[in-house]
Amino acid sequence: MGSRIGLMLHQAGNEVILIDRWPDHINAIREKGLIGEFEDHEVIAHLPIYSPEEIVEDHANVDLVVALTKSMQLEAMFQDIQPIIGKSTFVFCLLNGLGHEETLSKFVPKENIIFGTTTWTAGLAGPGHAKLVGTGSIEMENLDPKGKAFTLKVLEVFQKAKLNPIYSNNVRYSIWKKACINGTLNGLCTILDCNIAEFGSLSVARNFIETIVGEFAAVAKAEGIELNQAQVIQAIEATYDVKTQGLHFPSMYQDLIRNHRKTEIDYINGAVWQKGKNYQIDTPYCAFLTQLIHAKKELLNAK
Amino acid sequence: MGSRIGLMLHQAGNEVILIDRWPDHINAIREKGLIGEFEDHEVIAHLPIYSPEEIVEDHANVDLVVALTKSMQLEAMFQDIQPIIGKSTFVFCLLNGLGHEETLSKFVPKENIIFGTTTWTAGLAGPGHAKLVGTGSIEMENLDPKGKAFTLKVLEVFQKAKLNPIYSNNVRYSIWKKACINGTLNGLCTILDCNIAEFGSLSVARNFIETIVGEFAAVAKAEGIELNQAQVIQAIEATYDVKTQGLHFPSMYQDLIRNHRKTEIDYINGAVWQKGKNYQIDTPYCAFLTQLIHAKKELLNAK
Repeated sequence: MGSRIGLMLHQAGNEVILIDRWPDHINAIREKGLIGEFEDHEVIAHLPIYSPEEIVEDHANVDLVVALTKSMQLEAMFQDIQPIIGKSTFVFCLLNGLGHEETLSKFVPKENIIFGTTTWTAGLAGPGHAKLVGTGSIEMENLDPKGKAFTLKVLEVFQKAKLNPIYSNNVRYSIWKKACINGTLNGLCTILDCNIAEFGSLSVARNFIETIVGEFAAVAKAEGIELNQAQVIQAIEATYDVKTQGLHFPSMYQDLIRNHRKTEIDYINGAVWQKGKNYQIDTPYCAFLTQLIHAKKELLNAK
Repeated sequence: MGSRIGLMLHQAGNEVILIDRWPDHINAIREKGLIGEFEDHEVIAHLPIYSPEEIVEDHANVDLVVALTKSMQLEAMFQDIQPIIGKSTFVFCLLNGLGHEETLSKFVPKENIIFGTTTWTAGLAGPGHAKLVGTGSIEMENLDPKGKAFTLKVLEVFQKAKLNPIYSNNVRYSIWKKACINGTLNGLCTILDCNIAEFGSLSVARNFIETIVGEFAAVAKAEGIELNQAQVIQAIEATYDVKTQGLHFPSMYQDLIRNHRKTEIDYINGAVWQKGKNYQIDTPYCAFLTQLIHAKKELLNAK
């Protein structure tokens, strides 16, 4: 996703630097450039790329950091990239999941934080080689009213880069809604070893999602967000269709079951469970599902 | 288990008839007798065996029916064997799980019901061929004080058959305790696809079993049984040892994952969930685990 957004911003004439931790990816881009394989054409962009430890003061006080790490990597990344963050630097957080506001607030004042969600997708064919099919959009909103003017500038830049940005009046609602979709399909397909359509065909599917969305909604409400549960359930059930996402295995399934990698469960169901504890709201399905995914991670020795 | 107990009672001189629904098993025993392969010797016993539909009035009013069906088969079996049950017939229920008292009470007065648990095991090498390794014991107790005299007679018969019976003063406690062991290891090893030792090695294992045993204990308490949770947890954790049961996969795992057969989850965690509803006690881990096993059953098209 960093390649996707970095490349599209670069193509629109912006100065872009990439930051990543994967040595093969860094080396490939330095040697051959970043290959962006779109559906009908390919581009090669010679973008500067650094590992976080290499960041030098040349890049101090960047205008905008677009955060696209895995959830569990966000905090360490921001600890490492502090040299490029100045007083006027904004951060645009496009991570899935919950709890990132708390993490980013340790590094950046609230008025410099933009939150968003996106429907763009991206895949990697190999180091330095991004597969960029389909289209998408990006919702964005400043966390604090003071950040609005700059956020509208970012919107304009993203607009010119054809990233289809939309200014949202309630991006936290969208983040919670997306978290509900991930908080049901990701964990359940992973623990049941099935794709989205197979999950949707289960007689218990509706009860599972009602219960989990109910737990998300109770915690969201304590944070001032009134989720429309019927609408969220409808959005989840729309993914069952084999003509859309039905035949896909959710990203958590791919991470854990296929690639034996750690999952983002602690930032989805786990975050609801932990937040629920603070508000004294019981979230047993989120708790149990989080524990089951951790158990599976240990059994598969996921790294 | 029917072959085990039937054979041992027969060897001690009792008149035994077997009742089963598996045609291959019935035919094999009729043709070649029941083969009992003990550790150090083999016996062949020509026992009468019937399918429930074949039962005729020749066998009306038997002294004792030892019930050893799968939990979900108990009710249909008792519907079918009514011709052999007379006013003085006792039923000795050795099924695992909960809720069988309610089922049997539809067919037999409470004073004619004996409940028990057993540590004997048995395997089938094929139709008509039982593998009978190891030793065991049987706890038994009449459900109603009026049944005590007959239960002590059964105890004596079982004693002579070397089945190591013990008269229990609280068989319902033993049944609940055994249900706790099955209610944790069976469902969790099945859904996590691991053996008992692997389950025991998980960092969340203790929390899983504490939570689930806590739910069982709350419901047991409503039924007048005070489970010693620490003792139950100790009994569960004792099974993790690779020198005892650690390397085994629980029976539910074998039923569902290996053989794609239906499980007894509705009579273990599912029974606690349903009983909990009646007592207005929340049992979310039992509920979720029951639903997950049902989901897995549907995905595997288990019959």
